[in-house]
Amino acid sequence: MANPDKSSAAIAYVYRGTFVHSTQQTALQVQEDALLGVDTEGKIAFIGEGKKLEALSQVFQFSPSEVTQLTEHEFLMPGLVDTHIHACQYSYAGTALDLPLLQWLNTYTFPVESRFKDLEFARRVYTHVVVTRKHHNSCSKSYDFGQRALVGKVCMDRNDSVKHYRESIQESHDETCRFIKEFLDKKYPLAKPVVTPRFALSCSRELLEQLGKIAKNNNLHIQSHISENKEEIQLVKELFPESESYTDVYHKYNLLTDKTVMAHGCHLSDKELAVFKETGASLSHCPNSNFSLCSGVLNVRNVLKHKVKLGLGTDVAGGYSSSMLDAVRRTLDASKILTIQDPKHETLSFEEVFRLATLGGSQALSLDDQTGNFEVGKDFDALRVNVAAPGGPIDLIHSEGPKTLLEKFLNLGDDRNIVEVFVAGKKVVPFTEPKAE
Amino acid sequence: MANPDKSSAAIAYVYRGTFVHSTQQTALQVQEDALLGVDTEGKIAFIGEGKKLEALSQVFQFSPSEVTQLTEHEFLMPGLVDTHIHACQYSYAGTALDLPLLQWLNTYTFPVESRFKDLEFARRVYTHVVVTRKHHNSCSKSYDFGQRALVGKVCMDRNDSVKHYRESIQESHDETCRFIKEFLDKKYPLAKPVVTPRFALSCSRELLEQLGKIAKNNNLHIQSHISENKEEIQLVKELFPESESYTDVYHKYNLLTDKTVMAHGCHLSDKELAVFKETGASLSHCPNSNFSLCSGVLNVRNVLKHKVKLGLGTDVAGGYSSSMLDAVRRTLDASKILTIQDPKHETLSFEEVFRLATLGGSQALSLDDQTGNFEVGKDFDALRVNVAAPGGPIDLIHSEGPKTLLEKFLNLGDDRNIVEVFVAGKKVVPFTEPKAE
Ligand SMILES: [Zn+2]
Ligand SMILES: [Zn+2]
Repeated sequence: MANPDKSSAAIAYVYRGTFVHSTQQTALQVQEDALLGVDTEGKIAFIGEGKKLEALSQVFQFSPSEVTQLTEHEFLMPGLVDTHIHACQYSYAGTALDLPLLQWLNTYTFPVESRFKDLEFARRVYTHVVVTRKHHNSCSKSYDFGQRALVGKVCMDRNDSVKHYRESIQESHDETCRFIKEFLDKKYPLAKPVVTPRFALSCSRELLEQLGKIAKNNNLHIQSHISENKEEIQLVKELFPESESYTDVYHKYNLLTDKTVMAHGCHLSDKELAVFKETGASLSHCPNSNFSLCSGVLNVRNVLKHKVKLGLGTDVAGGYSSSMLDAVRRTLDASKILTIQDPKHETLSFEEVFRLATLGGSQALSLDDQTGNFEVGKDFDALRVNVAAPGGPIDLIHSEGPKTLLEKFLNLGDDRNIVEVFVAGKKVVPFTEPKAE
Repeated sequence: MANPDKSSAAIAYVYRGTFVHSTQQTALQVQEDALLGVDTEGKIAFIGEGKKLEALSQVFQFSPSEVTQLTEHEFLMPGLVDTHIHACQYSYAGTALDLPLLQWLNTYTFPVESRFKDLEFARRVYTHVVVTRKHHNSCSKSYDFGQRALVGKVCMDRNDSVKHYRESIQESHDETCRFIKEFLDKKYPLAKPVVTPRFALSCSRELLEQLGKIAKNNNLHIQSHISENKEEIQLVKELFPESESYTDVYHKYNLLTDKTVMAHGCHLSDKELAVFKETGASLSHCPNSNFSLCSGVLNVRNVLKHKVKLGLGTDVAGGYSSSMLDAVRRTLDASKILTIQDPKHETLSFEEVFRLATLGGSQALSLDDQTGNFEVGKDFDALRVNVAAPGGPIDLIHSEGPKTLLEKFLNLGDDRNIVEVFVAGKKVVPFTEPKAE
């Protein structure tokens, strides 16, 4: 537990109460009446038993009277990690879900995205996303600048439906390099650039090769889509006849690394999953999107059996909800549907899905050295949840244990139950306006 | 539209703005800048165009200055009808979903229900349900006394797991008759008693026969469960070998009438659906419950092709959510899953699901002569929805047409978007405390 030697920074604040999180060994670990201290660098300085308050306060030099006590229906949990979202599709979330993937991209996505060349439109939508997400429940994701984020500039040089949205290879290369350079120059403490081919179908071999090189030369994260629906897989087969599988296309161009996260993978074969395992690449499971666009149902159990890293994603606006709680619920639904189809399927438990939404997400994004659970030395990314928040969606009739409180929150909760959000130790909800200079 | 002769009652209030509802012919009918007047008996007195305000105000004798104008992001829609819920299971909503149906009943349901003999426990839980549901979004359902409701006393004389919860046939008969008599004596204006065998497995032939007679002699509604999962179907086959099908068991004892609503029906054959059509019995589709207990996926399209009446239900606590918006979303999911399994399946549109949740529900409960849509002469059961409600879950970035506003509300909305609820013309949300006498 406590290791005072490693941390030189002073304690900023201490919580006492129930904490729930996941470890590699245990899907749900509950600590009741525990103490958690966060240092001035935003890192978890110690975790210990409540009854050891005196001793801990002396070792870590904080005043026992300044400890914040959680109430009976509250707990702390790690932030929910959204491993896949399209910020520029946010404006039409919850609509336009009547077409399968490829037609959907051409009809709704490409035209809207091409409007983002209009910078005022882009600023307006992105501002909305960042502000709203702050009021919701994610800590790590792939687009915003206020919180922990991986942000990519989508690359595509093949697209016949919206001509002016297509780039030449040279443009794509130059823009990507410029985006990465400018991004890195800004030294955002919590944001990283990601190399982002949209998906194999919209990229030439040359572009894929270039992007693989850029990622390698700069040791960057990579994100894209794979094996989302069957029509797409068939077209990839036709466009890349030299590759054995969809996975093989990305693998060939060095786009599968231990910093790669691929969305969907609904129809990956066991052989392809083995390549994911071998390369360390991970999957982002986006069940709302997979249902909404009728793409397929990923067998998460099979992915886990192959020891492939997996996190959850909202995939807004293919998924209509930007809430990670929705992703948790739909992941359970997807697993139960597989059990309906085959009673021998081993259904995911809510504890396992909780792990996928927290630690699993941080592993999928290769950020698990910094975040994903409450380990001493990691950044304090956390939600303070009040299951009985006044005006909230949950009725508590009996008093319940922490496991049931977590299950109620995951199944029935919403943003009203999230009373505080911390990213790297900094409280981002409730949002406090920075002072004017 | 307006038919002043039929209504003798004076106009109580008038709304002007966008109204959305369903008819037999059109899944989604949108009326923009329309007028809707409710009379002092709670019935819809007229619907007309906004520009005819002058004329309507003279015919129906109201003052144009008293018309309530809906804002740009608001609309009126019919109340959402929950056709199947277990009020006494509300306390464990959102938990205990790790077992299939029959084990789930024995482990969680029967022990909790047997506690309802403790009247204080019952009062406490029911009060919670009624108050909460008022703050949520249903208008017609099967248990509470404040709103429109069908309420049943569950009957079962076969149950080996919780002995003291089983009744003798005589007890069940006497209690049912007593319940019905007392209920009718109280003359609740909006509530009716329902004959409620739990399901075939927990009833003897004699009990089923008695209940069929009671329903017939008193012209009562009937509700039960049918064909929820495959293990249950197999057991019904074994217990009732003389019956051709699960449907046939109920049919034999006169429990399928045009006032019957049966929950689930996931695995009904076309032949059984034909019996539903013939008898006028209806189905309550409870997709959250069907997913949560891994029961099956009802093919709603096939039910509709057989012209069987169908509404949506939450089935709390087999379904973890008591929100009818959840039932709408899960109905779309279930339909999309069938499309994933068979691309030739004709996916339900959100407009069709909207109709099932409103008009379909009122038809399933045989209440469509009184409620379900905005027709002159029907009771005014309605929700006033503000898609852009401050502090609510929906971000509106662009201004949107009414169809998109409805789709956003159904996919992303919650109780915060429901600013007023009317039942039979009476505003029940926001709730106003009755004056002390
Ligand atoms: Zn995506
Ligand atoms: Zn039920």
